[in-house]
Amino acid sequence: MKPLLVFLACLPLPAFAAGSGAVGKNLLLIAIVLLAARIFAPLTQRIGFPAVLGELLLGILLGNLALFGFHGFDGMTADPVLAFIGELGVIVLMLQIGLETRLADLVKVGARASLVGCAGIVVPLVLGAYVIGPWLLPGRDSHAHLFLGAALAATSVGIAGRVFRDLGRLGSRAARIVLGAAVIDDVLGLVILAVVSGLVQSGSVSTIEVAWIIAKAVLFLCGSIWLGRKVSPWTSRWLARVDNSQSMLFAQVLATALFLSWLAHAVGLAPIIGAFAAGLLYEPAFLVDFQSPQIVKEIQPLLEEQGGMAENRMGRVLAQHSARQHEHMLEPIGYFFVPVFFVLTGMQVDLRVLADPAILGMALAITLAGILGKLVAGVFAGESDGWLVGWGMVPRGEVGLIFAMVGRQLGVIDESLFAAIVIMVILTTLVTPPVLGRLLRRRLG
Amino acid sequence: MKPLLVFLACLPLPAFAAGSGAVGKNLLLIAIVLLAARIFAPLTQRIGFPAVLGELLLGILLGNLALFGFHGFDGMTADPVLAFIGELGVIVLMLQIGLETRLADLVKVGARASLVGCAGIVVPLVLGAYVIGPWLLPGRDSHAHLFLGAALAATSVGIAGRVFRDLGRLGSRAARIVLGAAVIDDVLGLVILAVVSGLVQSGSVSTIEVAWIIAKAVLFLCGSIWLGRKVSPWTSRWLARVDNSQSMLFAQVLATALFLSWLAHAVGLAPIIGAFAAGLLYEPAFLVDFQSPQIVKEIQPLLEEQGGMAENRMGRVLAQHSARQHEHMLEPIGYFFVPVFFVLTGMQVDLRVLADPAILGMALAITLAGILGKLVAGVFAGESDGWLVGWGMVPRGEVGLIFAMVGRQLGVIDESLFAAIVIMVILTTLVTPPVLGRLLRRRLG
Repeated sequence: MKPLLVFLACLPLPAFAAGSGAVGKNLLLIAIVLLAARIFAPLTQRIGFPAVLGELLLGILLGNLALFGFHGFDGMTADPVLAFIGELGVIVLMLQIGLETRLADLVKVGARASLVGCAGIVVPLVLGAYVIGPWLLPGRDSHAHLFLGAALAATSVGIAGRVFRDLGRLGSRAARIVLGAAVIDDVLGLVILAVVSGLVQSGSVSTIEVAWIIAKAVLFLCGSIWLGRKVSPWTSRWLARVDNSQSMLFAQVLATALFLSWLAHAVGLAPIIGAFAAGLLYEPAFLVDFQSPQIVKEIQPLLEEQGGMAENRMGRVLAQHSARQHEHMLEPIGYFFVPVFFVLTGMQVDLRVLADPAILGMALAITLAGILGKLVAGVFAGESDGWLVGWGMVPRGEVGLIFAMVGRQLGVIDESLFAAIVIMVILTTLVTPPVLGRLLRRRLG
Repeated sequence: MKPLLVFLACLPLPAFAAGSGAVGKNLLLIAIVLLAARIFAPLTQRIGFPAVLGELLLGILLGNLALFGFHGFDGMTADPVLAFIGELGVIVLMLQIGLETRLADLVKVGARASLVGCAGIVVPLVLGAYVIGPWLLPGRDSHAHLFLGAALAATSVGIAGRVFRDLGRLGSRAARIVLGAAVIDDVLGLVILAVVSGLVQSGSVSTIEVAWIIAKAVLFLCGSIWLGRKVSPWTSRWLARVDNSQSMLFAQVLATALFLSWLAHAVGLAPIIGAFAAGLLYEPAFLVDFQSPQIVKEIQPLLEEQGGMAENRMGRVLAQHSARQHEHMLEPIGYFFVPVFFVLTGMQVDLRVLADPAILGMALAITLAGILGKLVAGVFAGESDGWLVGWGMVPRGEVGLIFAMVGRQLGVIDESLFAAIVIMVILTTLVTPPVLGRLLRRRLG
């Protein structure tokens, strides 16, 4: 009987996809994450922390159960199926954040966000490559310092976005600056990774390659949003004629996000940038065809007006009629997927690296430099948003890890520096949600 | 730049999970399936067919684009990530079907369903192994005939459940008999697969092994539902104390389905049996803690009454207050996942096998035997439900394919018989939705 079951497990058929042990265990992990996230959300919020912190800590717990002799979840961070579910999670999250962000508001802080984004890349890069690097690793060549600086420069938009969203502050000026700067950072991060890798591998890098990455990113972002805003009113009208239901509207929005994520990835950008663009391109005006005639009558005059004020009033009318059903329909999908991403991020933390005091000391120094670099960048946000924006850009998330891994694979970063960067990523990611939560609450209170 | 991207693609990190070409393409396929399924649902229903037929046909189209020189979707049926998404789709579907089915109603038709289920296994098995087999394949040994019979015996609950659900007839007596019989068939199918494989491999099979599989299945089904009904009022009360929201209720129900799917799989049963059990164990009575005090006051007296009538009245009260929010929250997840399963099923159809007239003739003979066998079983449903129940059990779906694949791997079934069985699976799956739809409409009309 046993060999037969093993045998069935190998068949590439949907019905028996869960036949393999790993995939069956994925069902269990998703069940745990789904329920635990719903339990953590109110509990962490009651003690004043954003819900995402609970998910990260659950991930650290699950990922380090092996230390207590339980090996049931070993190796799950490398599982491609869970990784994809987590990827869908960030895609849905960035779509939600995009839908809750008005493009006009983002454009309004565009210049400021660009300034902050560039400063947030340049300051930590210089700090890492020319100050902390030579000081901590005096004997190592400049390539190692450069990679350390690059790892300090990357910002993770996922964590910051989650915190602002958890606390209902996505509409604030600070949140918009952080979101804009983080998108710019994501693109510049890719550029830097290409440049430093090119420098290490061939000793030089062509300006054309760098220009091409930047051009591609700008073209993708502007192109997809501009074209999407031209095309989506037409597709909406056609789809509403087939079936004038909220489920069609929901499918249209989510399919657009998946499509643009694929497209972003296909041109070499991070998929979440595509999902964010999809969220930005849909605004109430384009979804009129899915509303009842009564609602349309109310918003028709607002549609003819231009500008943010009319859009805001329109949003209120639609909200009153609970006509933003497509956003409500995304919620359950978010509950299902989003926590998987953050739990997986937490699971990548190996608590054993904390045991070596030399590594720990180096890690703390790098972490301080990392936080300092972003807080300096926050100053460029102006007004009273400096601290909020600075802290919003502190988390490095998985982007910093990618830099460290590429550096290690190229032979530039050794095991102890790698471990120190990993700890830096953990600490900046863990420290941000509570600090940002406290700053936001103080401002509200 | 190119090697760098390829290199990034290999990192086992969530943020870059979609870095590999295949996973990026999965995003595109899911986007297409999600939107196409929403477009097909109203279109197929307008011409009188269940929505699932559109999804199967879309799958056949996508799976055979290679015939027209487009190879973008080649090999996607073997992708483990998509297979898992499809698996989640059937799990969500069976959970929804379970939630929409009252356990008391299912028990009421229990004896009848057992009779139909057993007849639905025995008649096609005998027909295949002792009539059609020897007639079509006179020279082949009896093992090949036995496997053909086994492939004819398996029922796919997914297709029939979808059709009844698409047409809003899950509450009918026929649907309950089909669901009950299909669950019994699923268990007996496993038994038969074990027995015939044992016979082929070692020439004999022990009665103890057979008894153990049956005992395990009965124990799992009765045990999980009985224990779940004892435990879930307590967990509900505790969870509602943490957060008395519909999203918590939704997470509890979905997590239970995933957990029981994992458990069913862990004891060697099909995961969807666990998901169905999860749907059956939650009834409005257990979810009282998530309702507003006013609703609780209305249903309290009904809770003290026993039996189906009180439950039905309770269901109506809860429906009036739209208190079955957890089922509504499952809808978007269903829209997202369920079509993936049926499109993948369709994609496994290779239209080229239809080109050989000898195989096609054999396939048609097997198909007729397969349909006949289940229609005879339907007679045991009694009253006027014979046709409906018989046709409800006709689709073989992926279960028949598994039999054929195991037989081929054991060297019992050759390529042409395999192709014929595949065509049988396709035809029974494709023919059922329209026939069942017409039968149900005629009864309503």
